[in-house]
Amino acid sequence: MRRFTYFLVAAATTVALVALIGPAPGHADGQSAPYVTDVPHGYRDWQWISSAHEAGNLNSLGAVLGNDVAIKAYREQKLPFPDGTIIARLAWSYVPSEENNKVFGRAQSFVAGAPINVQFMVKDSKKYAATGGWGFAQFKDGVPAENAVLAPCFPCHVPIKSRDYVFTQYAP
Amino acid sequence: MRRFTYFLVAAATTVALVALIGPAPGHADGQSAPYVTDVPHGYRDWQWISSAHEAGNLNSLGAVLGNDVAIKAYREQKLPFPDGTIIARLAWSYVPSEENNKVFGRAQSFVAGAPINVQFMVKDSKKYAATGGWGFAQFKDGVPAENAVLAPCFPCHVPIKSRDYVFTQYAP
Repeated sequence: MRRFTYFLVAAATTVALVALIGPAPGHADGQSAPYVTDVPHGYRDWQWISSAHEAGNLNSLGAVLGNDVAIKAYREQKLPFPDGTIIARLAWSYVPSEENNKVFGRAQSFVAGAPINVQFMVKDSKKYAATGGWGFAQFKDGVPAENAVLAPCFPCHVPIKSRDYVFTQYAP
Repeated sequence: MRRFTYFLVAAATTVALVALIGPAPGHADGQSAPYVTDVPHGYRDWQWISSAHEAGNLNSLGAVLGNDVAIKAYREQKLPFPDGTIIARLAWSYVPSEENNKVFGRAQSFVAGAPINVQFMVKDSKKYAATGGWGFAQFKDGVPAENAVLAPCFPCHVPIKSRDYVFTQYAP
């Protein structure tokens, strides 16, 4: 209970700080990259694009979902993605399923464990012009990551500029 | 081109044979389990339930999608699933992404490769009474698997009877 209370206080403090700080500095002065500060509405209802397992330190099982604009662009193989596209990456810890393995009679099944975080790419070619037209975001329990966490997003996506900075391909 | 033509002929022959044979024998005599013979319409547009990696011989990366009835029941944690529920399991081969690994600077990223098949569980408590109310199906390139392939489906799901024979849990 104490740990939960601590978490609530910490979360509330973070939310309060974010509210005090306001939008990312770049948003106001146009110098550095602005980031997405609000969780896009209804993303858990979006359609599925693909899944991935990131091994190593991340050790995540992720699903990539897209809003209607994203799904349409993917299916029509239309690049660049139009403004209004939002792509969500939901990550869970990658854990063995004892339940499934018991039935299979061998250790082979890995499923989604505890939630890790949710990341977004939001296309707005004017607002996010400094980062290829994409606004980046990461939320954990609804709390946005700090700008320092988001700064490496765009540089990491630059190598896939040929697909409009989007790594994930549509699984038909 | 020849291989594609061969595929078309083979697929057409299989479809024709299935049409000649008609529904699974059990469907008519009520003795053995009937199976689902048509691909449920529009399943690729359904909402995402969860993902899984099956290692070992399967070596698949799968996504589990549900129609509106399935998603509603999952979210309301309502068991048994109501008639009309359809759950789809889409499987791809589990392959490393050279593209992603190059950016990460290490081999860690596994994504969806070639499609393997699509499986369905269709809830109709009367039609599929012999198999817990679930009709099972598997399609590869739209062609249904033979009944011998589907016969082990239900026995394998019996251990999870407490969750109405459904292994996959909703990833929130």
